Amino acid sequence: MDLDLLRSAVEWRDGRLEIVDQTLLPERLVIRQLRSVDEVVDALARLAVRGAPAIGVAGAFGVVLGLAEAGPARPGPEGLAAARADLERVAAALAAARPTAVNLGWAVRRVGAAAARAADAAELRRRALAEAEAVLADDRAACARMAEAGRAELASRSRLLTHCNTGRLATAGVGTALGVVYAKAAAGEPVQVLASETRPLLQGARLTAWELVNAGIPVTVVADTAAGAAMAGGMVDAVLVGCDRVARNGDTANKIGTYSLAVLARANRLPFYVVGPLSSFDPEAADGAAIEIEQRPAAEVSTVAGARLAPEAAGVWNPAFDVTPAALVTAFITDAGVLRPPFPRSIGAALAGLSR
Amino acid sequence: MDLDLLRSAVEWRDGRLEIVDQTLLPERLVIRQLRSVDEVVDALARLAVRGAPAIGVAGAFGVVLGLAEAGPARPGPEGLAAARADLERVAAALAAARPTAVNLGWAVRRVGAAAARAADAAELRRRALAEAEAVLADDRAACARMAEAGRAELASRSRLLTHCNTGRLATAGVGTALGVVYAKAAAGEPVQVLASETRPLLQGARLTAWELVNAGIPVTVVADTAAGAAMAGGMVDAVLVGCDRVARNGDTANKIGTYSLAVLARANRLPFYVVGPLSSFDPEAADGAAIEIEQRPAAEVSTVAGARLAPEAAGVWNPAFDVTPAALVTAFITDAGVLRPPFPRSIGAALAGLSR
Repeated sequence: MDLDLLRSAVEWRDGRLEIVDQTLLPERLVIRQLRSVDEVVDALARLAVRGAPAIGVAGAFGVVLGLAEAGPARPGPEGLAAARADLERVAAALAAARPTAVNLGWAVRRVGAAAARAADAAELRRRALAEAEAVLADDRAACARMAEAGRAELASRSRLLTHCNTGRLATAGVGTALGVVYAKAAAGEPVQVLASETRPLLQGARLTAWELVNAGIPVTVVADTAAGAAMAGGMVDAVLVGCDRVARNGDTANKIGTYSLAVLARANRLPFYVVGPLSSFDPEAADGAAIEIEQRPAAEVSTVAGARLAPEAAGVWNPAFDVTPAALVTAFITDAGVLRPPFPRSIGAALAGLSR
Repeated sequence: MDLDLLRSAVEWRDGRLEIVDQTLLPERLVIRQLRSVDEVVDALARLAVRGAPAIGVAGAFGVVLGLAEAGPARPGPEGLAAARADLERVAAALAAARPTAVNLGWAVRRVGAAAARAADAAELRRRALAEAEAVLADDRAACARMAEAGRAELASRSRLLTHCNTGRLATAGVGTALGVVYAKAAAGEPVQVLASETRPLLQGARLTAWELVNAGIPVTVVADTAAGAAMAGGMVDAVLVGCDRVARNGDTANKIGTYSLAVLARANRLPFYVVGPLSSFDPEAADGAAIEIEQRPAAEVSTVAGARLAPEAAGVWNPAFDVTPAALVTAFITDAGVLRPPFPRSIGAALAGLSR
């Protein structure tokens, strides 16, 4: 199978944002065309699009769709002022859709900043579109660089445990942590994946397993409860996860359950890698305490596919993410190379390089 | 609410074994009457009855049902020989239904040994019934002793995280780990429970939450992935679990996911207690390596309530239990009191006391 033929989470086609509706996998592959900010916000909120990089790309094109919704661009200073007001309103609505993934606000601001430099409303829209396309292209290129860096870093390790979904369904490219798996497979190197199912929304069982089965890469799903036993039982060579927001000191917000895997990897003397682009690093966050953790609805835990799992009268605590302390991370595999401890220095240098 | 009025997992009534069919909770409370060995084996295999102590009680009465199935007891030496052959056949079938819980084989052997001392077939049956009733009464009394020992041990800790179900639905009494919760509530002490949902079969969400809601005790369900974040976030004072089989050195086989919670408790400096009767301790097992781990069907992980979660082509690894190294256990709360490290000595002394 040519891995390049596989679809990624978000694509831009004929003025519409095409997404794979990830709430319906693995039972049905449904492609949706989003034409408005509301549709993008809705897709983000119900996790039809998810994965920090894909969320960023969707937000970028959400700005483009929002500007187009305002009707034809008007000429002159008044038209420009109106377009700038549209830009601000649309950017705020999009950035609020998911609070934890740093890529969303980052991508929306990037498109907004590029657009705001325009001399008139029409140019503002052209610039917004060009920048959104650059966000997508950059994400694809960043995925390729991370995949290759991870392949080299993990040359001697073939049995990889991963969490949630960090592949084509999470990015505009081959993915972050799962991109490393694709790079190993593309290079003809042995690789097999243990996918933790990732309750409550089961992105590991539903999405990662679906992606890897489609790509012909061996994948075994385990309940989240079995990940520790797999490590203790010698079934795992390394743990690889993505990230939703990394603080300057290396504390990492990622899908709930990541922290547990990091603690278990340490207890079992296994390397624990976080794979993500520099756009997932937050220069504003000194450490994990600065990261807001999104709380999700109780029904995600208490029901599955319409069936009630927990009695209605029971309470539910359902944080979407947890924070893994930097001390548990072996290294970050980024589009700027592998960042090693001490992280304040390596992350600081990488972010400084980005802003040059 | 009078906690004593609540039903437990297994009861003997009018020559039938009454069980709560735990596969249907929390949606429906269905009581089933089991009348044959095959029905008992089936109920054990599909986890309609589960929980190590309840499994033992069901096995004990399974012997009684199996003897009755053979028709009227025949007099004389031939009748006795036939009854002994029945006993052996029935005991073997029951003991094979679940390989990991030590209580099953223990209870079946106990009933068999008591029955085999009979002088004729009719006495053999009477002795089997009396011994099965003693197994049930002993389990109920053991639960009460563990609950009180745990209440005293955990006097200063009110926010308890537990795994799987270890309450009335797991025993013939108030439970093991959850019995401690009931004892605290009955004594008017503050107590609240964080219940990990316990994938794949969700005994925490379905059974523990149902039990505690019925008893009016505050319970909050979390995905298994969120247990670590709850501990790191300061939401937990202690972790309490049950056990399916404890080796002589304290290595503990229990529901898959227990090992992860023990590692996380240690990383967060929280006490980790194992609660179980001495009948769950296996004098034949020197350490965890001697404990057979039951593998369960893939469909338990890849489907829920008929809905497919993982693609059919993906592999599944589904061990029912894991082994927690003794070094991660703070203490065992047993019907013979609280056993503390060094465990080879304290467990050895408790088991020696038992055989005196």
